[in-house]
Amino acid sequence: MVAVIDLDAARAARERIDNLTKPQGSLGRIEDLAVQLAAIAGAVPDRPYTRKAILIGAGDHGVAHEGVSAYPQEVTGQMVGAFNAGLGAINAFARVSGADVYVADFGCACAITAGERCFDLNVRRGTRNFAREAALTGEEVQRALDAGKAAFRRIAQGGIDVLALGDMGIANTTCAAAIIAALTGAPVDAVVGRGTGIDEHGLQRKRNVIASSLARFADRDWQTVAREIGGLEILGLAGATIAAAQSRVPVVIDGVIVSAAAVLACAVEPNVQGYLIASHLSVEPGHRAALAHLGLSPLFDLQLRLGEATGAALALPMIEAATRMVCEMRTFAELGVATKLA
Amino acid sequence: MVAVIDLDAARAARERIDNLTKPQGSLGRIEDLAVQLAAIAGAVPDRPYTRKAILIGAGDHGVAHEGVSAYPQEVTGQMVGAFNAGLGAINAFARVSGADVYVADFGCACAITAGERCFDLNVRRGTRNFAREAALTGEEVQRALDAGKAAFRRIAQGGIDVLALGDMGIANTTCAAAIIAALTGAPVDAVVGRGTGIDEHGLQRKRNVIASSLARFADRDWQTVAREIGGLEILGLAGATIAAAQSRVPVVIDGVIVSAAAVLACAVEPNVQGYLIASHLSVEPGHRAALAHLGLSPLFDLQLRLGEATGAALALPMIEAATRMVCEMRTFAELGVATKLA
Repeated sequence: MVAVIDLDAARAARERIDNLTKPQGSLGRIEDLAVQLAAIAGAVPDRPYTRKAILIGAGDHGVAHEGVSAYPQEVTGQMVGAFNAGLGAINAFARVSGADVYVADFGCACAITAGERCFDLNVRRGTRNFAREAALTGEEVQRALDAGKAAFRRIAQGGIDVLALGDMGIANTTCAAAIIAALTGAPVDAVVGRGTGIDEHGLQRKRNVIASSLARFADRDWQTVAREIGGLEILGLAGATIAAAQSRVPVVIDGVIVSAAAVLACAVEPNVQGYLIASHLSVEPGHRAALAHLGLSPLFDLQLRLGEATGAALALPMIEAATRMVCEMRTFAELGVATKLA
Repeated sequence: MVAVIDLDAARAARERIDNLTKPQGSLGRIEDLAVQLAAIAGAVPDRPYTRKAILIGAGDHGVAHEGVSAYPQEVTGQMVGAFNAGLGAINAFARVSGADVYVADFGCACAITAGERCFDLNVRRGTRNFAREAALTGEEVQRALDAGKAAFRRIAQGGIDVLALGDMGIANTTCAAAIIAALTGAPVDAVVGRGTGIDEHGLQRKRNVIASSLARFADRDWQTVAREIGGLEILGLAGATIAAAQSRVPVVIDGVIVSAAAVLACAVEPNVQGYLIASHLSVEPGHRAALAHLGLSPLFDLQLRLGEATGAALALPMIEAATRMVCEMRTFAELGVATKLA
């Protein structure tokens, strides 16, 4: 069960923030973030959120064989290797805010060398090709969700203030776009983008693959969509999101893949919505539809489209700033600063 | 003299970034930031920009006596005290990115206790009331610019990678709006906002004060505008901006006050423009006109309107991320990762 966020704590946070030595509302969305963090935790934060973790869910997609990606499938495993060696973009970004980077293999096609921060939670060596058949069985869907919950529990062992999510998986923008179209009702053409950079021809192929796959089945409940489309890292990320919300830990979502996972997680457990923080607006068009469906407003738009939690990582300092504002600033009365003129 | 930024270094940075293990362009504006930082430094960054300094210029304005602010003038000095005690919003935000906070009294009305990171560079105890007479003499304008350059030199002594600027000064949005209207040609009504939160009546008074003050003199060269309008912290910040650019240090600008200082700095030394990074888009309407005049695009819009460099401070992690991307990621060739399909 995921609890409803705590509106009493939200009100208490707003009251404190309104009395800090600054004009009311002058820290805009940073104030809103602090209020949300209080609602999530069930109390006004009393120390800065410095314990940051990033989880990258990795998985492969049978639909890659339809020529929907600009890169070959082997890149998924190679990039997991780069993350484990600390050489990916996300490792560089994580160092800025002192976040720990974890990788979970939820469904890579190749074998991954597990380690202290790289979890072997492989459900299957890539999904089936959803252009031709159901990507997963119902049991595989459940195992992927459970794997995500297990990943969260391992990360949270040492204590955690905030979880940022990211993805790695060749062809996963095709999968994410299909999930978003199916679960939000957005038209296929409005949610399909170039991913890592396919050409016009590839883009049309990608649209056709998604449209014909969605025409294969009529039901739009999350179980059917998850089975028919996949993917394993997306379901793993959805599971991690649900587990974090159950533990009252805020979840920072990244681009279109993690947002598809968030849409799935909210379909499974609607109360999850209150625990989500949207970091950036991606170039990938399906992201906008997913965020609108989730009722979330991104904090920034830096024209990112990499994934790996790179956008989410850039929001972590803003979240820490929101908690420091609440904990480390003083009120007008506490500091003896003159208040607003009557 | 401020050198033109180095376009050869910009090209070298772009070439390296295009070969890092990510789709080309997929880190959007973070890539653009890295290219700009290379152009500013004259070389592709070879280590992360972790040496961050924040300078808050403080000063008072005679025009405060026209009832254009929601807060009394004594707040300027009281907030400088809060910064020095580490209790302001900017102190909280600076801790997130490990930035050092410096305060310079360029023209506070009250006496400020100087310290290691609080510089007494007071030119005069507040400007004259520009609604009634010229705010400063030509000599005071020059002394304020020089004070800003001196502040930068003191900050830069121990080595510095990036400088973020902020402000504190009751009534300074009135001053900034007047400068922006005068130097960009934007209509007064389009650049005047509520500052710390005046009511509709006060807003109209503020517009009238600015319009009638600008009608008092015809010339729109920066010297005339600086003399007639002030203010001392804005000129100090302009001086610091010019000195940073002379030292090839990037300058992160904050809201409407610092942007007015940047407009002035570029009027004094046009090459300064290439050294500026716009952090956020402020709620204050004059900010948009100033950024457009400067040809800058803000990195984010968090509905901030506090000043103190709070917006600029939130951009510092993005700048560090850009440098870490260049220094810490590897190319496809270096990592043996498969490249894009033909």
